[in-house]
Amino acid sequence: MSVSTIASDRSVCSPLPVLGRDVTVPLVTGGEVTYAALDYAASAPALQRVWDDVAAYAPYYGSVHRGAGYLSQLSTDLFENARGTVAEFLDCREDDQVVFTRSTTDSLNLLASVVPAGCEVFVFETEHHASLLPWRDAQVTYLDAPSTPRQAVETLERALAHRDPSRASGPALVCVTGASNVTGELWPVRELAATAHAHGARIVLDAAQLAPHHPVSVRDLDVDWVAFSGHKLYAPFGAGVLAGRADWLRDAEPYLAGGGASRKVTRRTDGGVDVEWHESAARHEAGSPNVIGAYAIASACKALTEAGFDTLVARERHLIRTVGEGLAEVPEVKVLSLFGDDSPRVGVISFVVEGWNSSHFAAALSAEYGIGVRDGLFCAHPLVRTLLGSDPQTQGECGAPEAAPGEKSLNAIRVSFGAGTPDEHVERFVRAVKELVSEGAKWNYRTEGGRCVPTV
Amino acid sequence: MSVSTIASDRSVCSPLPVLGRDVTVPLVTGGEVTYAALDYAASAPALQRVWDDVAAYAPYYGSVHRGAGYLSQLSTDLFENARGTVAEFLDCREDDQVVFTRSTTDSLNLLASVVPAGCEVFVFETEHHASLLPWRDAQVTYLDAPSTPRQAVETLERALAHRDPSRASGPALVCVTGASNVTGELWPVRELAATAHAHGARIVLDAAQLAPHHPVSVRDLDVDWVAFSGHKLYAPFGAGVLAGRADWLRDAEPYLAGGGASRKVTRRTDGGVDVEWHESAARHEAGSPNVIGAYAIASACKALTEAGFDTLVARERHLIRTVGEGLAEVPEVKVLSLFGDDSPRVGVISFVVEGWNSSHFAAALSAEYGIGVRDGLFCAHPLVRTLLGSDPQTQGECGAPEAAPGEKSLNAIRVSFGAGTPDEHVERFVRAVKELVSEGAKWNYRTEGGRCVPTV
Repeated sequence: MSVSTIASDRSVCSPLPVLGRDVTVPLVTGGEVTYAALDYAASAPALQRVWDDVAAYAPYYGSVHRGAGYLSQLSTDLFENARGTVAEFLDCREDDQVVFTRSTTDSLNLLASVVPAGCEVFVFETEHHASLLPWRDAQVTYLDAPSTPRQAVETLERALAHRDPSRASGPALVCVTGASNVTGELWPVRELAATAHAHGARIVLDAAQLAPHHPVSVRDLDVDWVAFSGHKLYAPFGAGVLAGRADWLRDAEPYLAGGGASRKVTRRTDGGVDVEWHESAARHEAGSPNVIGAYAIASACKALTEAGFDTLVARERHLIRTVGEGLAEVPEVKVLSLFGDDSPRVGVISFVVEGWNSSHFAAALSAEYGIGVRDGLFCAHPLVRTLLGSDPQTQGECGAPEAAPGEKSLNAIRVSFGAGTPDEHVERFVRAVKELVSEGAKWNYRTEGGRCVPTV
Repeated sequence: MSVSTIASDRSVCSPLPVLGRDVTVPLVTGGEVTYAALDYAASAPALQRVWDDVAAYAPYYGSVHRGAGYLSQLSTDLFENARGTVAEFLDCREDDQVVFTRSTTDSLNLLASVVPAGCEVFVFETEHHASLLPWRDAQVTYLDAPSTPRQAVETLERALAHRDPSRASGPALVCVTGASNVTGELWPVRELAATAHAHGARIVLDAAQLAPHHPVSVRDLDVDWVAFSGHKLYAPFGAGVLAGRADWLRDAEPYLAGGGASRKVTRRTDGGVDVEWHESAARHEAGSPNVIGAYAIASACKALTEAGFDTLVARERHLIRTVGEGLAEVPEVKVLSLFGDDSPRVGVISFVVEGWNSSHFAAALSAEYGIGVRDGLFCAHPLVRTLLGSDPQTQGECGAPEAAPGEKSLNAIRVSFGAGTPDEHVERFVRAVKELVSEGAKWNYRTEGGRCVPTV
């Protein structure tokens, strides 16, 4: 098996400095080792630059918007300017709105709250739950997992072409990921957007896994909205983004009701209350905004842009190849893939190891090698079960009998990395996988509070 | 006029160290001065202790929940332990849930999303918009502003007693502030809770302005839920809290749909999707949690508890008296109050100055004295208009003709402070008010982009 890369052979630039790069952790086998954070797809460490910017700003933090003081005005400008930085990072259109949310999940729930009544939503079953589940008031069509990018486009094309005219009321909405949080594979966003628009539908891009790794241009991809999270973009301060078309956002009821979103509130003579809501991004940002979170995202956008995505992508491809080639040398390892191992991907790779319970394997990577990966179904249950070919009614857990040779694993292991990952981390990971498979774990493990931990 | 205090005469302990305590800002009249942050009721500076804790943790930040690595497990423990710290800080009952949100506004919108269908909500018109507006799917009764705490209880008693039995379906909900964000006055929470419960209703306490200043005991006050914000509790990292009874939270649809809230997601044979949601706090916390935000709140809870609320309250009363007595010496100043100037309050005082446009006055405090206050209607429009006796259809703005002597102001000025405020800040504020009133502003001001700023 091989994991696709388009990289040249040469070693490329250094990783971007991140917090925690010197943190050491104890090994169950004795001694300490530098921690290898290889769960970037869940949460990435903060860029040192982001931390430095936040630390420099923190003493100047002040109440925003109607605060009359110097620091309030500075903080208000910094918060509002962060929108512009994000808009530039995403290459937004002039009329697009940038709304600060708490995460991609929140961004997509916000969008779900503003889709017009009766809107039809089309979403592949392969999506992260954040993209799969928010459309609670819509008529959702779940699309089967495609086995190629072309099939994804054809599947969407067919679904949109066969919309029941009697159900249709206004534009439909397509929600699609830019890069899978399980396989890391890139989805054909531009083509899906063209297909959606050809049928009068709109499209939102879940860029949670794409934006940290690749440049995202709303204009070039021609998507209507894009959502991403600060904590995956090296800015883990509780903020996320929804950016894109203003019309549905402006026409809908505010996501949260409260101050900041309300321009004017008056008591009526009949005892009720009338509210005029803002029409700008503030409409959906009730409550005091997370100034530090928004500023951290803006700082990360600048840092990644300045580092240059050409360089970052080249470096990441080098890391992907190291992992892919290393895992390909272990016959017991099966990398999970929808589009085939040669499909382009970001630094997110999931796999199972024949004869191993995935939680046990992940626990050994941590306890014996100081490597932090993730095990489970990665909040994309239908996709992972499809990839594993497992019974939807079962779910693996540490402590369950280990899968026997030839038996299907019930959950998977995911390794993920990015701009802050040094070569040594992925090299250590490959070495660890090889050793664990060939020599077995050096320690015993048991389940405690839902975690697989070394026995003491 | 006087502003009530119950303080002794003696000067009390030092302020708690906060970020920004040494920040200087330029004066329009030349030179620089230490910034006096007197808009705590909007957003308070971070406690130095909170910042230090966050800075010490930041390199150990890791992906939470299913991350198998050492830092992931450390971060998961830290996040989950933060719930316990908050529960202790609020003196919660054993079965109460602590849900991390983004702010009080978010907490109350979350609660609004879980009230049973048809629930009747009772809320005073005097509330902040965050308490006034979220009940969009409920049957809301707005209660008139009371003029005494006793009248508040009587008003609620009367309203609950006169519920239309044909409308009632299950318990009603009362939403009430602990301390007004406009007048700082304390509300009779315990008595209101007893009244609510006597009528089978439930009650949620908006503690946004109370928790930073006073100990809050869910048990003693006997409230069903309490909400507060990190950014007003010296922990401005984008998190807030809703704590209290688990039943409505457990029985309702998740606030956000996505990963983390979903225990199991399966594709049905008919193409649809089935979801099993968690029943714990995670049910309403979909998406990667704001670990740093939650940890910062826990750190602030510990810091305030260790400093001791007895000491903090005594010190704040000293500051309140300094401001109250100072303003009382200026006949042109009218302090806003519902319950009378002698009513107990936290460090939040709003006022108008005869002959002055409030935005102009606030701008002069900033530009000429380096003092940051707030002007406007403080996201409590009905209350401020009631207090000002102003026409609900008008709203003051800088640049509007200044109110002539005897004419009513259209907005107000609010000064607010807390655990990090040194005596010098409030003393400077009192001196500045006296000078501005007696000598006028030293500079000219104009409106630009909605702000009142010095002309250049």
